[in-house]
Amino acid sequence: MTDNTTLLAAWQRRVSLPLTLASLLFLVAWALPILLPTLDARLQQVCVWVTWLTWALFAVDYLTQVVLAPNRRAFIRSHLLDLIVIALPVLRPLQILRVVTVLYRLDRSASATMRGNITLYGTVTLIIVLVCASLAVLHLESQHADAAIHTFEDALWWALTTVSTVGYGDLYPVTLGGRAVASVLFLLGVALIGIVTGTLASWITERVHPSGSTPPASQADVRALTEEVRELRAQLAQLTARPGTEGPPPHTADR
Amino acid sequence: MTDNTTLLAAWQRRVSLPLTLASLLFLVAWALPILLPTLDARLQQVCVWVTWLTWALFAVDYLTQVVLAPNRRAFIRSHLLDLIVIALPVLRPLQILRVVTVLYRLDRSASATMRGNITLYGTVTLIIVLVCASLAVLHLESQHADAAIHTFEDALWWALTTVSTVGYGDLYPVTLGGRAVASVLFLLGVALIGIVTGTLASWITERVHPSGSTPPASQADVRALTEEVRELRAQLAQLTARPGTEGPPPHTADR
Amino acid sequence: MTDNTTLLAAWQRRVSLPLTLASLLFLVAWALPILLPTLDARLQQVCVWVTWLTWALFAVDYLTQVVLAPNRRAFIRSHLLDLIVIALPVLRPLQILRVVTVLYRLDRSASATMRGNITLYGTVTLIIVLVCASLAVLHLESQHADAAIHTFEDALWWALTTVSTVGYGDLYPVTLGGRAVASVLFLLGVALIGIVTGTLASWITERVHPSGSTPPASQADVRALTEEVRELRAQLAQLTARPGTEGPPPHTADR
Amino acid sequence: MTDNTTLLAAWQRRVSLPLTLASLLFLVAWALPILLPTLDARLQQVCVWVTWLTWALFAVDYLTQVVLAPNRRAFIRSHLLDLIVIALPVLRPLQILRVVTVLYRLDRSASATMRGNITLYGTVTLIIVLVCASLAVLHLESQHADAAIHTFEDALWWALTTVSTVGYGDLYPVTLGGRAVASVLFLLGVALIGIVTGTLASWITERVHPSGSTPPASQADVRALTEEVRELRAQLAQLTARPGTEGPPPHTADR
Repeated sequence: MTDNTTLLAAWQRRVSLPLTLASLLFLVAWALPILLPTLDARLQQVCVWVTWLTWALFAVDYLTQVVLAPNRRAFIRSHLLDLIVIALPVLRPLQILRVVTVLYRLDRSASATMRGNITLYGTVTLIIVLVCASLAVLHLESQHADAAIHTFEDALWWALTTVSTVGYGDLYPVTLGGRAVASVLFLLGVALIGIVTGTLASWITERVHPSGSTPPASQADVRALTEEVRELRAQLAQLTARPGTEGPPPHTADR
Repeated sequence: MTDNTTLLAAWQRRVSLPLTLASLLFLVAWALPILLPTLDARLQQVCVWVTWLTWALFAVDYLTQVVLAPNRRAFIRSHLLDLIVIALPVLRPLQILRVVTVLYRLDRSASATMRGNITLYGTVTLIIVLVCASLAVLHLESQHADAAIHTFEDALWWALTTVSTVGYGDLYPVTLGGRAVASVLFLLGVALIGIVTGTLASWITERVHPSGSTPPASQADVRALTEEVRELRAQLAQLTARPGTEGPPPHTADR
Repeated sequence: MTDNTTLLAAWQRRVSLPLTLASLLFLVAWALPILLPTLDARLQQVCVWVTWLTWALFAVDYLTQVVLAPNRRAFIRSHLLDLIVIALPVLRPLQILRVVTVLYRLDRSASATMRGNITLYGTVTLIIVLVCASLAVLHLESQHADAAIHTFEDALWWALTTVSTVGYGDLYPVTLGGRAVASVLFLLGVALIGIVTGTLASWITERVHPSGSTPPASQADVRALTEEVRELRAQLAQLTARPGTEGPPPHTADR
Repeated sequence: MTDNTTLLAAWQRRVSLPLTLASLLFLVAWALPILLPTLDARLQQVCVWVTWLTWALFAVDYLTQVVLAPNRRAFIRSHLLDLIVIALPVLRPLQILRVVTVLYRLDRSASATMRGNITLYGTVTLIIVLVCASLAVLHLESQHADAAIHTFEDALWWALTTVSTVGYGDLYPVTLGGRAVASVLFLLGVALIGIVTGTLASWITERVHPSGSTPPASQADVRALTEEVRELRAQLAQLTARPGTEGPPPHTADR
């Protein structure tokens, strides 16, 4: 069991860097034909092959991890998102979020800078999702006659107006796929406002009540003290009992 | 009194499953003519009868509960929403929210997973309200000449842009009924942002100040300790008084 | 000084009901010509006179309060909003917010139902502001050629899309006055989201950490306990000292 | 080292007022040609020279501070924003935020009025950013044929609909520069909602749990009390030991 855990950890350490590079390669191969529709047909074909190749790499990695995992059922349950990204090729752009995970492993700071971490990972995730959503919407909408989004600049501008929930309505998706991508951005927008608000609220609360320097007494502190007093009473009871036997029966500390 | 409480509980247990099925049946009978306006006239008539039949079932259930309730006034006051849904047939689609209540009864987790519960019930309620609001707006708007919302896909897309407060303005209701449904979605949108933010804020605060492992001492802890010390003093006072009577008068613990 | 305070309080008690009625009368006289532009010219004139008469009543009330106040400078500073509403006749509709103050005086519940109070006053204030903003925008926009808001229903619908920050853009003000009213609604919308979120966050935090039943020990509790122990030690020191004089000098509780 | 710190502080004190005046002068010289496009060509030239002159003043100030700083690397790292504003002339309007810093130095209240401070600086920063963003967008858009924003009133109205995330879509930027300014306003809008919400949430939480009057017992309090009890036990042990030697060995307080 521990042997397998070690094997799994060793595998994850080994493939971490290659897979991150693969995900960046995927991003390039996926984005290039979208950004340059007039690209040479042979190059476009290469890009398609590269996206499938990197997808195969991730599938192999996932299967190897399942095989090496000591408890396969638990592994699959805790890595459900990975399975979905592998199983539904349409979600492949999400593989780029792997970069956030790597960033997290490189710099795992203490909880003292928790807010800093949330800000850093939140910002990086936001930029990745904005770029990927812009590319996806540009790809899906460019095939439609009534579409208003024709350039990457337009798509990124649309993604920004959407994620901030401003929604001018100068640009909006009209295809089912584009609307599906937009719905994910809506959710992200609401969550983004929630994260920004939560982080600021936590910061404001701390500044308003700066009682962090002396932590409040814990239950454990008071219980240790109560034990101390109980022993003291037992000692006193013994003293009372000694001179004669007519003293009151010592209160047994059976509470 | 307890007899009636038992009767009420037994009734609620018995009708829980049939009424949930009835609410799902209502949803189908209500949604079908909206989604398929070219439906056979006789089938449409059947759907109308089914919606009224399920409404009658809910009315009977409500009246039976009022009759069985030990304190009828208190029951009516605490089930005011049920009364309104029964009394105003236009609100009948809200009966589908009964599914959330059933979900709640099936899986009542401890308060440790409170945030998980809020996420689960919030998501299910959101999906139900989005689908029902889309159907209602489609139904209300399709009868108007200037309406822009003509398909369920459009209606759901409109509901999503509304509940996230993005509001592109490519689609919006123009009838009074459609605007009333939209206003409910506005409220839900603001509450949704509030719930997401509150849950994230609570999570962030917990991660920033991870003091949850040792709870702070409660007033009860300190009072128990104070009582312990008071008894100790009484015991000591007795000891002091015994050897002679010239000792200082024992401090009575009358504080 | 106390005499004046009593006089001021007596005045405020006396005029509370008449001024609330006056503010409701103002609302009717202000709203009528806006909602019914085809109103008889003489009736319109009556309405104008009523709005100025109620304004005069509020001005007299304010001046009387200033005269009766024990500390006039402090009174003016703490009632700055009242002064602005009196001084700028364009803000007179805000006088209707007096109803909220009366509601507050009638039912001042304990802080246990603080969240209930915030919900109640928030809802009442929101409805009043929405109705007044709709009337004001309808009044200001109806005089402009390019305006899109022509009926009260349109104005209320616009106010709802604005306060929820949805902002479809089907209706929007084009006059400077209408835009000023809209800007106040923007602020209210952001504050509304803040209040809803804050209330929900407070509720979620309480449910996630249900430690509200036993309040934590206060510093006062622990200090009372420490005093108790100190007296106990003094008593013990006396006991130790009595049998002979060779005992250790009693620790004076001078800490 | 301390000598340099004193020199740096003296320099900062001396130039604080002149630089604030310079930033206000910059604002006038920058805004004038934008607000009055028909301005005399010679006056426009003067304005351009004034903006560059004030920029030079800020650059000189920054360089002097770097030279005087005891630890130059640390100074540059903690004043990165200043460097960016100096290095990228397009960001020069941000120099006006210096006014907020001066306001902060003039009135540094205690943390008791933290919420008041956040409200004050938040409001001042919001107004400055709104005015500057309006001017910048008006400047950038007025050079484009398809632009809809032509007057300062329009630009300010657009900035207000944007920062509140309402986004009607009656006005929106179409140039790359205008969209960049808008993106900054989006971020500010989300942060604004976060700050308002956080402040209100902190206020609501305090009102719901009004335990601020008696601070909870700190760990230090309980430890002082434990020490007190320990000394008491040592005293009692001594007393027990004295009359004979058959007593139980005193519990050494080595815990």
